[in-house]
Amino acid sequence: MTDRDTTLRLDPRYDPAGLITAVVTDRSGALLMVAHMNAEALAATQRSGEATFWSRSRGRLWKKGETSGHVLTVVEMRIDCDQDALWLICDPAGPACHTGAPSCFYRRVEGDSLVRVA
Amino acid sequence: MTDRDTTLRLDPRYDPAGLITAVVTDRSGALLMVAHMNAEALAATQRSGEATFWSRSRGRLWKKGETSGHVLTVVEMRIDCDQDALWLICDPAGPACHTGAPSCFYRRVEGDSLVRVA
Repeated sequence: MTDRDTTLRLDPRYDPAGLITAVVTDRSGALLMVAHMNAEALAATQRSGEATFWSRSRGRLWKKGETSGHVLTVVEMRIDCDQDALWLICDPAGPACHTGAPSCFYRRVEGDSLVRVA
Repeated sequence: MTDRDTTLRLDPRYDPAGLITAVVTDRSGALLMVAHMNAEALAATQRSGEATFWSRSRGRLWKKGETSGHVLTVVEMRIDCDQDALWLICDPAGPACHTGAPSCFYRRVEGDSLVRVA
């Protein structure tokens, strides 16, 4: 175990691109989405209380819901043992997925096939 | 939207290192851990029904619990819209975290401090 595993000081372990994985669930534990944060996105999330990520495709900060209005209000944030992943428990203002599904994880894997479940 | 967003065919979008993010919860929705899979780990997981990852630190396949016995039996697997993240709903045989905590996410983030919650 390293110091990061046990410390009570926030010390995110960013990857070489400066990113940390952010997993979003609602209060019921439904997995809504997985995205990435850099230090600026984490600071913005903590400051505003609304989930803000680093969009790798757009190359810029991205407040979830900035256009759709489907913001994610952060109820609680946790970090994992080696501090390279965040868990955001959120109240979603609308569907989390850009497809309109409540969760991005709306397909179950069955062998090589996917089955729509939401 | 791309074809990956809507297809009913499994078509994982591996990153340049050949990896996809794998998020593990239990049936209650508690987030247990976040790890990575390559195609071989995904195939082994599907074949065995027990969560198997690619360990970036060890540079090899890693069946969770191979030494501790704390295997993760997969109840259901889902994939997200752009197919770069998997959600494994699992029955854990023991603590998911190498620190002995039930979940790797055992600390809440409070500003720059962490508060142990499990």
